Amino acid sequence: MDSDAKKTALRMIPYGIYVLTSESRDGRVAAATVNWVTQTAFAPPLVVVGVKADSGAHAIIKESRVFALNMLGKDHKAQAFTFFKSLERDGNSIGGEPFRRGSLGAPILTNAPAFVECQVVDIIEKGDHSIVIGEVKDAGVAVQPTGRADDAILAMRDLGEKVFYGG
Amino acid sequence: MDSDAKKTALRMIPYGIYVLTSESRDGRVAAATVNWVTQTAFAPPLVVVGVKADSGAHAIIKESRVFALNMLGKDHKAQAFTFFKSLERDGNSIGGEPFRRGSLGAPILTNAPAFVECQVVDIIEKGDHSIVIGEVKDAGVAVQPTGRADDAILAMRDLGEKVFYGG
Repeated sequence: MDSDAKKTALRMIPYGIYVLTSESRDGRVAAATVNWVTQTAFAPPLVVVGVKADSGAHAIIKESRVFALNMLGKDHKAQAFTFFKSLERDGNSIGGEPFRRGSLGAPILTNAPAFVECQVVDIIEKGDHSIVIGEVKDAGVAVQPTGRADDAILAMRDLGEKVFYGG
Repeated sequence: MDSDAKKTALRMIPYGIYVLTSESRDGRVAAATVNWVTQTAFAPPLVVVGVKADSGAHAIIKESRVFALNMLGKDHKAQAFTFFKSLERDGNSIGGEPFRRGSLGAPILTNAPAFVECQVVDIIEKGDHSIVIGEVKDAGVAVQPTGRADDAILAMRDLGEKVFYGG
């Protein structure tokens, strides 16, 4: 396989930017910027997230079996970079972002324009990232998109001309 | 769960447009427009595709254990609509699009700007679409993107103001 071709072809996949959140039984909170996300079914509504196998978010989600995907808005570039690194909760905020408990117990970032909260259906541990399959059990929209919904989310390309996570 | 919120939040996930192809042992070819695609690992390079459980592509991939994702270019809107319906091969073309055999045996659309060819690692059959996990074994780029790779692919939003598959 031509590794340049593999990189270019895989980087053609467009991505939005999300903060993946979860809370452990003992109150540790993970909040991690992710982009490897897709819906995979309507009924039940399923999403798949690629989660770094050695990350704090992976460990906490594996225990809690619950996570939220917090969609970032076009003006949330700073938050995307904040949650590239691993942070610890400070009361009911993390990385300066306040959160509340969702109906399943996952942290919902108050400033995110929308979220889905998911029950883990399965975690397929293959490779350097695991495939986390979640069933959407709750959702909220704090800022209704004015145009197309998929134009309202912060996109990978918005983070910088040379910024990619994939390939 | 508020079903409108679920729909809007899930429709914030941006998607590219791909033609998913596979060939059965007895020479039947499936070519289906899909958008539920994400990479999920670097090593090994994995992708996930949500594939309609009752589709011809699903049946053929389940048998062949091999598929290709053919990325569509910005000028391939007509091809996206062509492969929304199920078609049959006509020699070495389908829906008017010529194809060649990839190194694993999957049909590679000659006019697609790029492709990845994958070995099926697992098929998680949950819901109205299955989660097909593929390891990228080959890739090709026929048309090198001039700017960002993720700007070169046909996007869901390019198909029309009201066109969504998700939510």
